[in-house]
Amino acid sequence: MGKTLHFLNDYESLGHENVLQKLQERWSEYYRGYGFDTVSEKVREQIRKFTNRPQASTYFVAGGTLTNLLACSAFLRPFESIIATDTAHISNMEAGAIEATGHRIINGSNVNGKLTPATIEKIVKENQAETKTVPRLVFLANSSETGTVYTEAEIAAISKVCKQYDLFLFMDGARLGFAMASDKQDLSLESIAKYCDVFYIGGTKNGAIYGEALVITDPELDRNFIHAQKNRGALLAKTYAVAMQFEALFADENLNEVQDFSETLYMKNAIHANKMGRLLAEAFVEAGYELAYPTESNQVFVYLPLSLCEELSDKVSFEISEKLENKARCRFVTTYRNTEADIEELAKLI
Amino acid sequence: MGKTLHFLNDYESLGHENVLQKLQERWSEYYRGYGFDTVSEKVREQIRKFTNRPQASTYFVAGGTLTNLLACSAFLRPFESIIATDTAHISNMEAGAIEATGHRIINGSNVNGKLTPATIEKIVKENQAETKTVPRLVFLANSSETGTVYTEAEIAAISKVCKQYDLFLFMDGARLGFAMASDKQDLSLESIAKYCDVFYIGGTKNGAIYGEALVITDPELDRNFIHAQKNRGALLAKTYAVAMQFEALFADENLNEVQDFSETLYMKNAIHANKMGRLLAEAFVEAGYELAYPTESNQVFVYLPLSLCEELSDKVSFEISEKLENKARCRFVTTYRNTEADIEELAKLI
Amino acid sequence: MGKTLHFLNDYESLGHENVLQKLQERWSEYYRGYGFDTVSEKVREQIRKFTNRPQASTYFVAGGTLTNLLACSAFLRPFESIIATDTAHISNMEAGAIEATGHRIINGSNVNGKLTPATIEKIVKENQAETKTVPRLVFLANSSETGTVYTEAEIAAISKVCKQYDLFLFMDGARLGFAMASDKQDLSLESIAKYCDVFYIGGTKNGAIYGEALVITDPELDRNFIHAQKNRGALLAKTYAVAMQFEALFADENLNEVQDFSETLYMKNAIHANKMGRLLAEAFVEAGYELAYPTESNQVFVYLPLSLCEELSDKVSFEISEKLENKARCRFVTTYRNTEADIEELAKLI
Amino acid sequence: MGKTLHFLNDYESLGHENVLQKLQERWSEYYRGYGFDTVSEKVREQIRKFTNRPQASTYFVAGGTLTNLLACSAFLRPFESIIATDTAHISNMEAGAIEATGHRIINGSNVNGKLTPATIEKIVKENQAETKTVPRLVFLANSSETGTVYTEAEIAAISKVCKQYDLFLFMDGARLGFAMASDKQDLSLESIAKYCDVFYIGGTKNGAIYGEALVITDPELDRNFIHAQKNRGALLAKTYAVAMQFEALFADENLNEVQDFSETLYMKNAIHANKMGRLLAEAFVEAGYELAYPTESNQVFVYLPLSLCEELSDKVSFEISEKLENKARCRFVTTYRNTEADIEELAKLI
Repeated sequence: MGKTLHFLNDYESLGHENVLQKLQERWSEYYRGYGFDTVSEKVREQIRKFTNRPQASTYFVAGGTLTNLLACSAFLRPFESIIATDTAHISNMEAGAIEATGHRIINGSNVNGKLTPATIEKIVKENQAETKTVPRLVFLANSSETGTVYTEAEIAAISKVCKQYDLFLFMDGARLGFAMASDKQDLSLESIAKYCDVFYIGGTKNGAIYGEALVITDPELDRNFIHAQKNRGALLAKTYAVAMQFEALFADENLNEVQDFSETLYMKNAIHANKMGRLLAEAFVEAGYELAYPTESNQVFVYLPLSLCEELSDKVSFEISEKLENKARCRFVTTYRNTEADIEELAKLI
Repeated sequence: MGKTLHFLNDYESLGHENVLQKLQERWSEYYRGYGFDTVSEKVREQIRKFTNRPQASTYFVAGGTLTNLLACSAFLRPFESIIATDTAHISNMEAGAIEATGHRIINGSNVNGKLTPATIEKIVKENQAETKTVPRLVFLANSSETGTVYTEAEIAAISKVCKQYDLFLFMDGARLGFAMASDKQDLSLESIAKYCDVFYIGGTKNGAIYGEALVITDPELDRNFIHAQKNRGALLAKTYAVAMQFEALFADENLNEVQDFSETLYMKNAIHANKMGRLLAEAFVEAGYELAYPTESNQVFVYLPLSLCEELSDKVSFEISEKLENKARCRFVTTYRNTEADIEELAKLI
Repeated sequence: MGKTLHFLNDYESLGHENVLQKLQERWSEYYRGYGFDTVSEKVREQIRKFTNRPQASTYFVAGGTLTNLLACSAFLRPFESIIATDTAHISNMEAGAIEATGHRIINGSNVNGKLTPATIEKIVKENQAETKTVPRLVFLANSSETGTVYTEAEIAAISKVCKQYDLFLFMDGARLGFAMASDKQDLSLESIAKYCDVFYIGGTKNGAIYGEALVITDPELDRNFIHAQKNRGALLAKTYAVAMQFEALFADENLNEVQDFSETLYMKNAIHANKMGRLLAEAFVEAGYELAYPTESNQVFVYLPLSLCEELSDKVSFEISEKLENKARCRFVTTYRNTEADIEELAKLI
Repeated sequence: MGKTLHFLNDYESLGHENVLQKLQERWSEYYRGYGFDTVSEKVREQIRKFTNRPQASTYFVAGGTLTNLLACSAFLRPFESIIATDTAHISNMEAGAIEATGHRIINGSNVNGKLTPATIEKIVKENQAETKTVPRLVFLANSSETGTVYTEAEIAAISKVCKQYDLFLFMDGARLGFAMASDKQDLSLESIAKYCDVFYIGGTKNGAIYGEALVITDPELDRNFIHAQKNRGALLAKTYAVAMQFEALFADENLNEVQDFSETLYMKNAIHANKMGRLLAEAFVEAGYELAYPTESNQVFVYLPLSLCEELSDKVSFEISEKLENKARCRFVTTYRNTEADIEELAKLI
């Protein structure tokens, strides 16, 4: 691509070396299909331990949109709807995938990219008449689409309002690692599993070639779920290939087993990416540019002059989210592959 | 698994060494997401050459069911239906994935696992009244679910009836390589692309870790198709990872470029698998067992006594398709990984 | 139409005089919309009494297909399917309306047009694998599409197998009156409500201009159902207009209130229609023609020579269901409007 | 209901006397089912004349939501979406019926309850990326949900932008009569048919018991449409019963045939209703209350003190659309049944 500084998104390269190595060394083995293999079972067991939920089930799916449409539709009746922010990925970036399963998304206004209990309650109350859909599932992304993260207190409050109004809580974890690695966040996998009915641990954006681990915490919801997965085309014949990638990401940097989720390559990748994000945000602020959102994870949103955008574009990959007059809201995404040298080099260009 | 002879299916192992090597050596590169990368474009161009259709488009999808539901629903209006055999994968093995997109499948009786023009015509004529769906797409798998293959003459005749009744023709190519490598078959990619509106070249069952290459031959149908792909959750962020696998499979055994499709690793894998299938079928026949279907590709269906099934199951992985009285219809699938020694060893056990 | 003998179907004329009179005399009144009116509530209360189920809910819908698609989809998750006979209306006469809601219908072979517990059980057992849908609702029409009716013992046995395998039981009652008026049948509304989770009392074919009364017997299933009704476009603004028609049909011939369902105009219409059917069947048999199905209600299926079909068609409206060599399977439908004189006149022509 | 002044909505009573009389006098006739009858054909021919489009087709449907979901889904592919205002009936009052067919609605901001070409163009331009749906159909209600109407110039401009961006134009005509009867409007049926691909002439709100006449102006779109109608449960067995109601509404007050649409009972009902609306609005303004929207048809939106709402509610039926502090936005709907005396009586109460 000619560019040497990569901040376009968190899926610009294949995956972490360990992930590729893990696959490579397994090429000659044989496994059972459709997730009935030993590797999938091992990773499921790891997730049960990390979440401290002996009854949690895990399903491996190839990508985020497919995981979202599967999880958003599997538990609903036809007239039930989904509550999400107006910034939600499912409303803005997934080409109507949720509606294609037959369900309306009701968008509430976001606060720093996040849902609040008050918004959820307001939407429920406004949708009581027979002319309305029945809100039934709350969708939130953590980290959010604007890079912000939910604290444990925030998730606990959302979970409470969900229980009050009989709503399922689904956390889109495409960037769950970055949320958990955030200074602003204090959520453990155990807490996430306690508060959410369904969530996923995203692989694609944090070291895997492809694959998300969808976790269902409630055994009642889990009933027959593999049929739901197959029904949406989301059950891979070689599910074990995804499981292996999580096996690598849930080990440490040397592919050794770990006991604690914080020691995993997955979290170390995320911690590094977030650190790069923080340094980058600081560089922008120091250079006098205004951040569009607080930088709480690996996405940095900053307003830059159009002329600078133009100049940077030769060497740097990044996204122009919205062009405004004379300036643009730009997104720079950091990953486990960025280095401090990258940040320094970029700092010189701005 | 303890078993040493593997005939359970064609997705029991990760993928061909070359595929894994290709990915491994690319780990540090950067690519654009969603199929807008150079590798995807290179493979698309290869397919344009192999099919001799300069306007053919290719989309990379993670698995067969997802590809089928995408292709079967993208072109239809709500009241239109799909014609398939009663043995069709979409009717028997995909958990209602097609119906979940809103369309009925009308099953016609199969002849050796295959559709015939007469069956298609009969179904169209029986579905004229306003109380019926309007048949609009013909689904066929090549090789078929019973391992048989369609000849060029058969496909030409089906294409003709499709054009007569304004039906799209979609070929499920999960096992396209095995069909093309069959002694019974004389279809080139060029012919397939000429007769089919849509078809796919299956990777998962013939050397890829995951991935199918869906080819749309008609530019009019291709319009906005990427939205259809995203809408079903079938557009991978790292589409390039699938494209790379096809890059390896469309090169020769030494990863060198080839001009002719018959020289690809993809075809060599399939030719080998079919040869193993033929040897295996011969072994069964020699041992006095009856084949359930003619062996034309890499799937061997044979009736075995239940007692033999029991004995074999310690060492051999294979599928019992249907238990009958005292015997069972069994399926043995051969792949690029089986050897003549495997067949000889199995022959000793039967 | 020039024809003077009407046996084409049971919706060839507007409706019973009493129904039209009831509407006519109400033209100047005012009512609340969407079923929140006093007439709807009165009919709901009547149905609670007739069924002896104080918690039964009733919803009024404009037609049979709409009622079927509403009832078949409202309770299911996306991967769940419907069991029905191969003769089922939803499979043969409703243009894919069920599949358009996203669900597969699994057709079992019929016995005289009817489902059996053994068939249901067989289908459930064949659909356990993750590659299958999960059967969840049993659809049966009573009277059936071939005019046969289910006895109380048959429904009880089906209900038992439904409970065993966690299946909802839905009875399509487009011709419920004719079933209940049959000599072969011994089912009361109370029994129907006891055995079925959902059923409907069809108005259109037995005296109403339009309208079916969908009854949900389980309060848990009833939760939020009005949203389901609106979501399918099945909630009429002037629901009261349908309710009034049932008010007329649930009174006696003189529009007086009755206590017992058997005294209603609805049942008297059906009893008369069935009697006409019996006489007609006897006339065919006497004339030497073979019945295609036993005549148990208001549909008479008979094999007639093509030449006779031709002759009759000047004066008589009836349906040729299937042309065979030299003969045809014909359907004659009787209603509350046919007279003994009609039958005698037809008898002379055959 | 105890109330003597009726302004709650336009479906509080059964239908116009002529409609009921027409049905009553036909009770003993026989007709063909599913719209293949002579009355349906007669009304279709009338519509062809009124619209001056010899190729226009008409389908009779039981209600507005069902007509909307049928028309909005029949022409679209799965990833295509619908553009509508944020006040649109399909977004606010139909319980997710459109999304249940699999399509997203994209809401643009309204100008007095109406769509503008600029809004349509903006939405199209914002939805180009592969992560977006493809806007394909424009939905507008005329009169709108706020009682405003589109001028011929406005519709012409919207039609132009639709053609430019390959969008179908669908006009929800639940209140088409009131729009056409408006002083603000200059659209003839001929112009509506010229500019819209699909529209409907609403019966339920202007004299019919039930029924909307859906008109498809483009023969290409009309192909197989009856299957679409059946597929959504929108094809009534006794379609002729709806057609008869339009026959009465398309005659004059004495049930005599007319040549010009403006002479129909349908238009006279609407003209009268609009006049009542105007008088009512004037009464509110004179009494010092503020209108929420300009009164252009039969819906009057006015801000009233909560105390007055309370007082009125004993005698007057009307809708409180939204409670604000101390006051409420109220809707009063006028129909062919309101009289000047009603308005005067209400005027005394305010």
